[in-house]
Amino acid sequence: MASEDAPAVSCPLPLASGQHVLLAHGGGGRLMQKLIGDVFLPAFANPLLAKLHDGAVFSVEAGRLAFTTDSYVVQPLFFPGGDIGSLAVYGTVNDLAMCGAKPLYLSVGFILEEGFSLELLQRIVDSMAEAARKTQVQLVTGDTKVVDRGKGDGIFINTAGIGVVPPGVMVGPHRVQAGDRILVSGDLGAHGLAVLSMREGLGFGGGIESDSAPLHGVVADLLHSGVDVHCLRDLTRGGLASALNEIATAAKVEMTIEERSIPVQEPVRGGCEILGLDPLYVANEGRFVAFVPPAQAETALAVLRRHAVSHNASVIGTVTGSDEPLIILRTLLGTNRIVDLLSGDQLPRIC
Amino acid sequence: MASEDAPAVSCPLPLASGQHVLLAHGGGGRLMQKLIGDVFLPAFANPLLAKLHDGAVFSVEAGRLAFTTDSYVVQPLFFPGGDIGSLAVYGTVNDLAMCGAKPLYLSVGFILEEGFSLELLQRIVDSMAEAARKTQVQLVTGDTKVVDRGKGDGIFINTAGIGVVPPGVMVGPHRVQAGDRILVSGDLGAHGLAVLSMREGLGFGGGIESDSAPLHGVVADLLHSGVDVHCLRDLTRGGLASALNEIATAAKVEMTIEERSIPVQEPVRGGCEILGLDPLYVANEGRFVAFVPPAQAETALAVLRRHAVSHNASVIGTVTGSDEPLIILRTLLGTNRIVDLLSGDQLPRIC
Repeated sequence: MASEDAPAVSCPLPLASGQHVLLAHGGGGRLMQKLIGDVFLPAFANPLLAKLHDGAVFSVEAGRLAFTTDSYVVQPLFFPGGDIGSLAVYGTVNDLAMCGAKPLYLSVGFILEEGFSLELLQRIVDSMAEAARKTQVQLVTGDTKVVDRGKGDGIFINTAGIGVVPPGVMVGPHRVQAGDRILVSGDLGAHGLAVLSMREGLGFGGGIESDSAPLHGVVADLLHSGVDVHCLRDLTRGGLASALNEIATAAKVEMTIEERSIPVQEPVRGGCEILGLDPLYVANEGRFVAFVPPAQAETALAVLRRHAVSHNASVIGTVTGSDEPLIILRTLLGTNRIVDLLSGDQLPRIC
Repeated sequence: MASEDAPAVSCPLPLASGQHVLLAHGGGGRLMQKLIGDVFLPAFANPLLAKLHDGAVFSVEAGRLAFTTDSYVVQPLFFPGGDIGSLAVYGTVNDLAMCGAKPLYLSVGFILEEGFSLELLQRIVDSMAEAARKTQVQLVTGDTKVVDRGKGDGIFINTAGIGVVPPGVMVGPHRVQAGDRILVSGDLGAHGLAVLSMREGLGFGGGIESDSAPLHGVVADLLHSGVDVHCLRDLTRGGLASALNEIATAAKVEMTIEERSIPVQEPVRGGCEILGLDPLYVANEGRFVAFVPPAQAETALAVLRRHAVSHNASVIGTVTGSDEPLIILRTLLGTNRIVDLLSGDQLPRIC
């Protein structure tokens, strides 16, 4: 595979030179330097990244940091309301926000498939850069690998993130307790339906758009408002049902939620009915639950409703006991239904 | 794809239940919880990971942190002297060490292909856990995605890492200057040859083993020894030649290296000759270069030689000028050869 020649010569495939990812783009040589110099550095420009060392070095004050990672394998790469690039930034920003942290720095790892369009890569990188600007995080260190044709799926992106947890903020499942009120930040299921609609060419009327959005702003406001937030969790794979089950298991609590209080857009509800999906389990990428003391639920709700990303927030239930992990849904008909974990997701590769 | 049934039912492929990765293992539901609970948590056990929140939260003192990431796509997954799991830990530990940092925390992102053997996954995870123990880093946060059969290649692993840079340590290409001596920590090319030999079934005599190893120990010793280390770089993709070119470009310096001082094991040299490879460009996973002031070169060499991982370290050259980025090799024949970047790597998917 050694080659000191031009890219079109080193690649046995009928690719227009310079238009597609080659194995050599991941080889640590001139083509990788060119990719970094032409695509990544201009888009992500910042002084830490510009040093091009094996890692980024930055100063921190004494305190607590949050550290998180996610890989993104969503298909299709572009969907109504977002794309894999912005998703990869917002998703990790949101995981930091759910720790109560102010997001600061992100790493980026690309796994590209040989033959992937460099034009699409540029669009995705531009989308990441725009998302980073919007959320005021810096993409400070990165890595690119290329795998042979047929051994990947165009592009996978991993981001890891570091954020600072402000003094006094203690957010986690261990703080959830009986009596806590449960808030959801907005209507459910739009991300999953938007991706599925695009992937399967379903073309739902009403133009459902993904809810993909950064949540660090509203979380910061909530924490600054004086509400003693006990736990936060974003509602990604597995939706609200999975998030509540995870927290119930970690905190060993029972929760009761009210179906009539759970916001779902009409087109999403209709789409779910046609497809046999339950919106409680459908993925979101810009929604979260918050557990707060009952006396502060109204304050928390008011803060959430001030932000566009959570303007239709709702109090959906209460932590009702502290024995067995259990989620009880009081249905529109007044009956009780246990909301359990599914084996997997209703929709694979949603993020 | 919704399924509340047993895994064998939710998967249309003839897999023995419980033996292979299913799409549902990445779905955020019960199977993912089981994978986390059965495989990841026992292997990586630590209090930060055990919280199972959206990220890990830990305290830091005021100072400088290093942050880095790499994805690992090596084939085959197991090779003489290592595997993708230990490589994913050592590789990121080494990138932190090259920043002069003491490695502390790692994140892990798995991208698994549907149908991948759970037994192999367990072996890889065990290898990561063992590598983490050896290097005293904690795997504190993670993510697992599953892609459909034919859209991945068994397993890809991303790790990101955080380390603390001790006060006073300033390591980076910007500090490289004319007069600096260039040390290489050991013999070159063993990792690349070991992986290639295994991949292509070449079966080189002499049993070449990968040099994959953690470098943070020897780097810490070097920094503590009082040597004013100007720059460090591990010699991964693209080998010594690419690392020196990158540094020369960043520091705008010319370097001269002596072929006779560059250690290469005989079996590696022989294998390279047969395959038409140049050991200067072959990947390593446990080797680095160090740039130090000339008066401290002997001290640095003595420190390196104290450690098993760098016992055959050598002074290989000098930074000879500060105008154009250029690497000159004085060959065994006494001639000069320019060592340029290749377009790509000689061996794809080497890490």
